[in-house]
Amino acid sequence: MTPAPASTQTFRAIDVIRKKRDGGELSGGEIESIVNAYTRGDIPDYQVSAWLMAVVLRGMTRAETAALTDVMLRSGEMLDLSSLPAKKVDKHSTGGVGDKTSLVLAPLAAAAGVTVPMISGRGLGHTGGTLDKLEAIPGFNVNLSVAQFRRVLDTCGCAMIGQTSEIAPADRKLYALRDVTGTVESPYLICASIMSKKLAEGIDALVLDVKTGSGAFMKSEKDAAFLAELMVETGERMGKQVVALITDMDQPLGSKIGNALEVIEVVEVLRGGGPEDLRQLCLELAGWMLHLGGVSATVAEGKKQSEKLIASGQALDRFRQMVELQGGDPRVIDDPRGLPQAQHTMIFSSPNHGYLSSLQCEQAGTACVILGGGRERKEDSIDPAVGIVLHKKVGDAVSVGEAMATIHYNDETRATRARQLLEQSYLIADSPPREKRPLIHRVIGRSGEKN
Amino acid sequence: MTPAPASTQTFRAIDVIRKKRDGGELSGGEIESIVNAYTRGDIPDYQVSAWLMAVVLRGMTRAETAALTDVMLRSGEMLDLSSLPAKKVDKHSTGGVGDKTSLVLAPLAAAAGVTVPMISGRGLGHTGGTLDKLEAIPGFNVNLSVAQFRRVLDTCGCAMIGQTSEIAPADRKLYALRDVTGTVESPYLICASIMSKKLAEGIDALVLDVKTGSGAFMKSEKDAAFLAELMVETGERMGKQVVALITDMDQPLGSKIGNALEVIEVVEVLRGGGPEDLRQLCLELAGWMLHLGGVSATVAEGKKQSEKLIASGQALDRFRQMVELQGGDPRVIDDPRGLPQAQHTMIFSSPNHGYLSSLQCEQAGTACVILGGGRERKEDSIDPAVGIVLHKKVGDAVSVGEAMATIHYNDETRATRARQLLEQSYLIADSPPREKRPLIHRVIGRSGEKN
Repeated sequence: MTPAPASTQTFRAIDVIRKKRDGGELSGGEIESIVNAYTRGDIPDYQVSAWLMAVVLRGMTRAETAALTDVMLRSGEMLDLSSLPAKKVDKHSTGGVGDKTSLVLAPLAAAAGVTVPMISGRGLGHTGGTLDKLEAIPGFNVNLSVAQFRRVLDTCGCAMIGQTSEIAPADRKLYALRDVTGTVESPYLICASIMSKKLAEGIDALVLDVKTGSGAFMKSEKDAAFLAELMVETGERMGKQVVALITDMDQPLGSKIGNALEVIEVVEVLRGGGPEDLRQLCLELAGWMLHLGGVSATVAEGKKQSEKLIASGQALDRFRQMVELQGGDPRVIDDPRGLPQAQHTMIFSSPNHGYLSSLQCEQAGTACVILGGGRERKEDSIDPAVGIVLHKKVGDAVSVGEAMATIHYNDETRATRARQLLEQSYLIADSPPREKRPLIHRVIGRSGEKN
Repeated sequence: MTPAPASTQTFRAIDVIRKKRDGGELSGGEIESIVNAYTRGDIPDYQVSAWLMAVVLRGMTRAETAALTDVMLRSGEMLDLSSLPAKKVDKHSTGGVGDKTSLVLAPLAAAAGVTVPMISGRGLGHTGGTLDKLEAIPGFNVNLSVAQFRRVLDTCGCAMIGQTSEIAPADRKLYALRDVTGTVESPYLICASIMSKKLAEGIDALVLDVKTGSGAFMKSEKDAAFLAELMVETGERMGKQVVALITDMDQPLGSKIGNALEVIEVVEVLRGGGPEDLRQLCLELAGWMLHLGGVSATVAEGKKQSEKLIASGQALDRFRQMVELQGGDPRVIDDPRGLPQAQHTMIFSSPNHGYLSSLQCEQAGTACVILGGGRERKEDSIDPAVGIVLHKKVGDAVSVGEAMATIHYNDETRATRARQLLEQSYLIADSPPREKRPLIHRVIGRSGEKN
């Protein structure tokens, strides 16, 4: 006659959906119940997609976001790297065009004595993916077992692999559903998805590179800062040191877009060269990784140390070592002709005099996808050789007929389409842009107070 | 190279979901595409439930609501009753406890010369359903074919059946999904669901009884008026005369709750008796049906005509005729002992002196469900004999030990539970309630301007 106490009552998905629909705050137990039931297959997709849409439109409190991250994290295996003596620090970027910093940072931070257990993703849409870039190196294997991953880490201090099926299976199942139900675009869900996977890596600290600008997922700095704060707080609630840098993605990062081309640019940076924006961002992020990894007292010192490790060739050596340990051909580092090369190139020249006033990332990134360098759908295969080399950055003066970009291609039809799109991505004005967008917009996180 | 014109592009459910998620107004074509694709089984439940949740939280414009109603209406068969000379008018109630007006109104309006093609539903949760009440009459068949329905209508001017699988199949499929995804509670979706089914009946006009108060789906008068306006405008956009009465459901309507008991009360009203609130509401609604049906110049005249048809016994005769035509035993109308009767009764007496200050509908309705008179789940069977007879209405003076209600039951355990709930539903105060809630709160609809 008397209703059973709440704790023994059966979980009803509909009650959790209704509560969120009506703007209520879900308890940790409610979030755990709906996510675990879904991961086990006990509740149908259609209830979870309705709940996800309610989350997108009603939002979540910090406590709910942390609870969601926690249950997703605990849905699978969590790496225990406590046997490795150094601090484990990773970096995560929300994605952009030409963003190849991970390939620079992992060996650079490892050379400084920080352990970098990096689990990355593939490219989708106009943004590239770390795994695709690594696979441009002949033989490079991103599918290591956990035991192999640990061995590489133990030997050279860094390792870069793809997500395994053991890590955060709840995220994989939820993400697949979000992708087809219009429920990707929520900072709370994005935060839980990113942080659950990163925290499963067994790290002590995390540096987040949250992109903002026309080529970023979060176009406005306000949205980027909101997501950054959410991720920092969620990580801190879980006892990790987390710092987020809001960085610019209003034009492609560096000069090269396309997988093999980006590997070449990574080597340039590790040799002390490379485009200034890419080099500066790598040093800034490395400075934070070294600081949070306990090998430098301040971020500024971490940057200086990173510059020295590049100048001495130690960072590049570490990259070479990692490539070799993961089955890749290390010779391509010294001779890029060993990397996949496109058969043809085509130059895109400026139609008039003036200044490059903007370079739309989404169109430039999509042009690379059209060439075959990225995926429109998950199942698409990619051509590592193709891509675009940009010869001008925003603010540069240009004259009629001057080369703006070189398209590296294997298919004439695709090249023509990519070129049309690329043309649309350039805006040339009579005077230089009034304001130069900063490379680093803001730093968010209490771990930053020490500096 | 050039994108295909919009009209030849494939419909993508995700685009429609995203547009509504972001607060956009969907075109008629987009709404048609998503609803038709779902009805055909071309898009999965999980996309539609995400879309429905976005509709619940973002709302719809009047044009979207009308488009949704229209596509649901056209998803199935639409009755063509144009061969019947009289105007076809129906009444729909949003549901309450003790609401048996349909059984009074169909024969009453038919006796006045209006054709009433009434397609009704079953009870669920604390509210009762017209079909369950009709089925308390031995032999009464609510499952007529369209041809049989038309024959009964042609012979006696009214017929009352359940929804057929041919009418608005999109609504049936959508409703089943809404029921399990927390997406029932949206005035836009409720409006489209009700109006699509009612407009498929081939009616010229519709009188809506939108309940408000503690026992209604829409608790506040504001919410009830919003839904009423939405339904009136949607019907008018489709060329129908529609009027909505916002009526009180803060205590059960009439004195009897339970299927056979409610049939007895219907006969009382059709004989000129019955509880005052039920009688008044029936006359008011009948007045509108007669007016919109073109047989009375004003609503007031329609009410007078209705009173006469009751006094002369013509309304009751029409009820008897309809019962017989639909296979029911007409003798129960003159001798209620032919209706299912509960084996036992139990009196619930007042614990103290005072005034009945409130009688919670949901608890009273749920008490009847517990007795077996309603359904907690769709698949539950019901006991037509059980129910509750209320001896006091809100505002009545009561003394210690005075009978407040009589419980008609067949199962002792259920009766005890129902009684406990019923006890909780009564609030007795020292003084009478300050304000008496009106029976009719408001009338909404341009068709009402004539009065």
